[in-house]
Amino acid sequence: MKRTVGDFLLDRLSQIGVKDILGVPGDYNLQFLIQMERRKDVRFVGTRNELNGAYAADGYARLNGISALLTTYGVGDLSAINGIAGAFAEYVPVVCIVGAPPLNSVNRHRYLHHTTAEGNFEDMMDCYRPFTVAQARITPQNAVEEIDRVLRACVREKRPVYLQLPSDITFFEIDVHNEVLSLRQQTSDTKQLNALLDRITEKLSKAQNPSALLGMALDRFGLRDLTQSAIENLKIPFATLSAAQCVLDGDHPQWIGGYSGRSSSDAVKHAIEQSDCLFGLNVKFTDSNSSYFTQKIPDDMINIQPFRTIIGHEVFEGVSAIELLERLSEITPPKQYQNCKPPVAKVEDPWVAKAGEKLIQNRFWKRVEKFIKPNDVVVTEAGTSMRGVKIMDMPSGITIISQPLWLSIGYSLPALFGSLMAKPDRRQVIFIGDGSFQLTAQEVSSFFEHDLKPIIFLINNKGYTIERAIMGFHSAYNDIPNWNYRQLFEAFSDGKSFFSRQVITEDDFEKALNDADKASDQLCLIEIMFDPLDIPKAVQTSANMVAAFNYGPRGLKELDKNIDD
Amino acid sequence: MKRTVGDFLLDRLSQIGVKDILGVPGDYNLQFLIQMERRKDVRFVGTRNELNGAYAADGYARLNGISALLTTYGVGDLSAINGIAGAFAEYVPVVCIVGAPPLNSVNRHRYLHHTTAEGNFEDMMDCYRPFTVAQARITPQNAVEEIDRVLRACVREKRPVYLQLPSDITFFEIDVHNEVLSLRQQTSDTKQLNALLDRITEKLSKAQNPSALLGMALDRFGLRDLTQSAIENLKIPFATLSAAQCVLDGDHPQWIGGYSGRSSSDAVKHAIEQSDCLFGLNVKFTDSNSSYFTQKIPDDMINIQPFRTIIGHEVFEGVSAIELLERLSEITPPKQYQNCKPPVAKVEDPWVAKAGEKLIQNRFWKRVEKFIKPNDVVVTEAGTSMRGVKIMDMPSGITIISQPLWLSIGYSLPALFGSLMAKPDRRQVIFIGDGSFQLTAQEVSSFFEHDLKPIIFLINNKGYTIERAIMGFHSAYNDIPNWNYRQLFEAFSDGKSFFSRQVITEDDFEKALNDADKASDQLCLIEIMFDPLDIPKAVQTSANMVAAFNYGPRGLKELDKNIDD
Repeated sequence: MKRTVGDFLLDRLSQIGVKDILGVPGDYNLQFLIQMERRKDVRFVGTRNELNGAYAADGYARLNGISALLTTYGVGDLSAINGIAGAFAEYVPVVCIVGAPPLNSVNRHRYLHHTTAEGNFEDMMDCYRPFTVAQARITPQNAVEEIDRVLRACVREKRPVYLQLPSDITFFEIDVHNEVLSLRQQTSDTKQLNALLDRITEKLSKAQNPSALLGMALDRFGLRDLTQSAIENLKIPFATLSAAQCVLDGDHPQWIGGYSGRSSSDAVKHAIEQSDCLFGLNVKFTDSNSSYFTQKIPDDMINIQPFRTIIGHEVFEGVSAIELLERLSEITPPKQYQNCKPPVAKVEDPWVAKAGEKLIQNRFWKRVEKFIKPNDVVVTEAGTSMRGVKIMDMPSGITIISQPLWLSIGYSLPALFGSLMAKPDRRQVIFIGDGSFQLTAQEVSSFFEHDLKPIIFLINNKGYTIERAIMGFHSAYNDIPNWNYRQLFEAFSDGKSFFSRQVITEDDFEKALNDADKASDQLCLIEIMFDPLDIPKAVQTSANMVAAFNYGPRGLKELDKNIDD
Repeated sequence: MKRTVGDFLLDRLSQIGVKDILGVPGDYNLQFLIQMERRKDVRFVGTRNELNGAYAADGYARLNGISALLTTYGVGDLSAINGIAGAFAEYVPVVCIVGAPPLNSVNRHRYLHHTTAEGNFEDMMDCYRPFTVAQARITPQNAVEEIDRVLRACVREKRPVYLQLPSDITFFEIDVHNEVLSLRQQTSDTKQLNALLDRITEKLSKAQNPSALLGMALDRFGLRDLTQSAIENLKIPFATLSAAQCVLDGDHPQWIGGYSGRSSSDAVKHAIEQSDCLFGLNVKFTDSNSSYFTQKIPDDMINIQPFRTIIGHEVFEGVSAIELLERLSEITPPKQYQNCKPPVAKVEDPWVAKAGEKLIQNRFWKRVEKFIKPNDVVVTEAGTSMRGVKIMDMPSGITIISQPLWLSIGYSLPALFGSLMAKPDRRQVIFIGDGSFQLTAQEVSSFFEHDLKPIIFLINNKGYTIERAIMGFHSAYNDIPNWNYRQLFEAFSDGKSFFSRQVITEDDFEKALNDADKASDQLCLIEIMFDPLDIPKAVQTSANMVAAFNYGPRGLKELDKNIDD
């Protein structure tokens, strides 16, 4: 069968589940956009700039399973790269498609616009190499092979890939053999899988207090439900690293809490650190998920990664986590374990607004917790927002979208645009500080353009409060210009109505939440006015850890930073 | 003498003329910001995001001679990289300083936030390598040597450099030997310079119609005045490539016009293409400055580059353009040349507003030309704005800021912020389309924050009109959301007053210009409402060239694009 290069790529994207391609048009990709315009299965969705496009593609992939970003060469792909590096760090599969200069010019090293005009056409791909798991420059000769190879890598590794599509060849017809892209994954080497299972059941049979610790990207790797089945079958308690918050239900009876090294609760510390059979689910410790490497993990943790399992010094390559978890969901546990969620009844703390009292962060997070409904999508920005969401008790079915490792400020707002495009029917709530909001604010206009209805909690503390806590309590560099956010949303709204409230006091807040609940047919903006130095104790403790790690004892002294923790 | 690493770097930046460091704070650079806060000679100026910061640093360097950008590791430097690649392509010296993770963690390959958590600390520098002329990770041991080496490279090559400053060592005291950074540049090899001069005077003595063509970055390399002296001494006509527009006075009597291959006027074509002694001043032909490689240049052009001169196949290395131009300014020209500006008197075309008539692009550019005053800074965005400014007759002393090669949309608005910070006392005027404006719009708030008073011509044609002309006349992908720009500026203004007009008709426009002239104590926003398909013929012709080059004859046919030119 003959297909044009452009249509073949679009066929493949459609087959792997891409319905919207996010990005920004440019002269090297306009012909591909025309090809897209002539189809019904894949459409282009413009974002306000390329970095926002990359963040949006990240958000889209987290709810849709995969996404695609289209930019133009040089100016476009370099603008987007921070968002793609974030997707790489956080294991989010994004297909980056770059409209590249004509192949005939690339091959002749011509001096073109959107290049440094030195004949080098490898520099952009070199930049993308560290942050993508496969790359290719498409030619009519390699298109069938390379497009399939690169897309398969994206699906398999759940990390971004990079395709350069030269502008002069997308109409060339090529021979296409396979009608549908095969996404079959390797199954395990059976002996290896059995050996591993034997090793695990042996460990389990001797264990008094087995438990599990959930790590990165379990949903992206399709391990969510299987992890739940295995944990429920084994009847063991589990804790979560920050990246796994709510990957299983936040009110799951076996969930004992978040684990983050020395900042964990005693019960969680005990269950994880004293476990004699600890299952890790794609666990990796970083500064940000371990309170700066204060984890104390048994040496022989069974760390189940997507394509291998590691137990201490033993590495079981060639084992698929899917099959291993299927087996762990079916085995008869050698024992009955009892130490699930400690039976401490949660003290009900009915939140009652104190009329006229200024709302403070601690009280805000307590109240907003009750606002979250089952199956909400909760998007959180780096800073006090992420820390606030981390300590919230969540109902079932919540999906959390954030970057606990990459922590790029400004990420969450465009990510929310992407996640809304992927699942417009789910209620989606964002917590974002004004400091971060300003970086990518223009994406608000995309909500209105596409009639999306997020609930936006804009935390206005006049700057980078998390950085004030780290270093520079009163330093001007942590301040930002004062914007009128309500007016900004209006400027972006194209005359569409939306709900907005500015909240100063507790009763303002209570009323705003109740009203917002009734305004679910509209975008809701709730701006919370906090004092710039309203820093919850837990945030300050954590900021002190950052300062101690970053600047060292010498730095702290020179900076007159007293840490008492 | 002992200095801390951070203060030593700040000393050096101050010595080379950096007064403001633009950028965004982040946890890895806060300690350096505190060091900066304690000084008076260098201050930090926050931008709304890192890409905007890079663009602003570019604009600052163009008027100040050099600039510096401060970001945080990973998320910060990758967000900025497109702006730095643009500065590299366009020869703009920007010192990129990145607050990096603590050296002790880098050396131990620890898994940190803002990294991909795989222990790789080379990836960011690898990304910057193609777009900077020197790079270093500062340590207490190498700081003196590396900071000086890297800053000298920036000053010498007029291109960006990249410094990683680990967060835990900026307070370490190091031995500093030289009190001031020496910026002495190499002088020429005398014999080589003399041989070249002989060669040139020989050519000149035989020539009937010598002329000159001005290329890239002459102002940045300090060649502006010397080029003018040499051209005036030789009394030869000169033309300019797009990057050299107004580098000498736009009304200079020897200037004959812009040269851009086949799009040039007949008189310019003749003077350049038929010249028997053509001086090139840092000339390099790219698609965008040559109407897609249609230049016809004598093979033996004398191309004077900053550190070498090329005449056909002869390369004179080791010759400094500064010295060569000094000599050419002093020699007695072997002949008297007469073919300067053709004595065709310009037909005075008094622009009279046609009452009630819709303003169109052609008429806009004719009128706005008379609005520009001597010594204005004119900032132009890619798209119809750049093409409009290109054909304007300019008075003396104008500085044009744009990216004729890199052409990154959104560049000009933050670049204007930078250029205003560098020279707040010059009147600065920007032409920017709404499509580009939306990418970096938040930087408007920085104008208000710093009480800057640019005159902003916002060309509202509801999308990417230059791309409509290239491909997709009526395609939705070239449309953008409809913003209320007046309201947007208000949201950013923090209550400060500003002048604004929305212009539809010719008389609106005339009145707006007159009123703006009187409102010079305020920021002025003049929004011009054009039809999305108001495309001047010259723009369409040029867009057709882009389409023909990008998509090839096959593409044009498949895309149903008829080019008749």
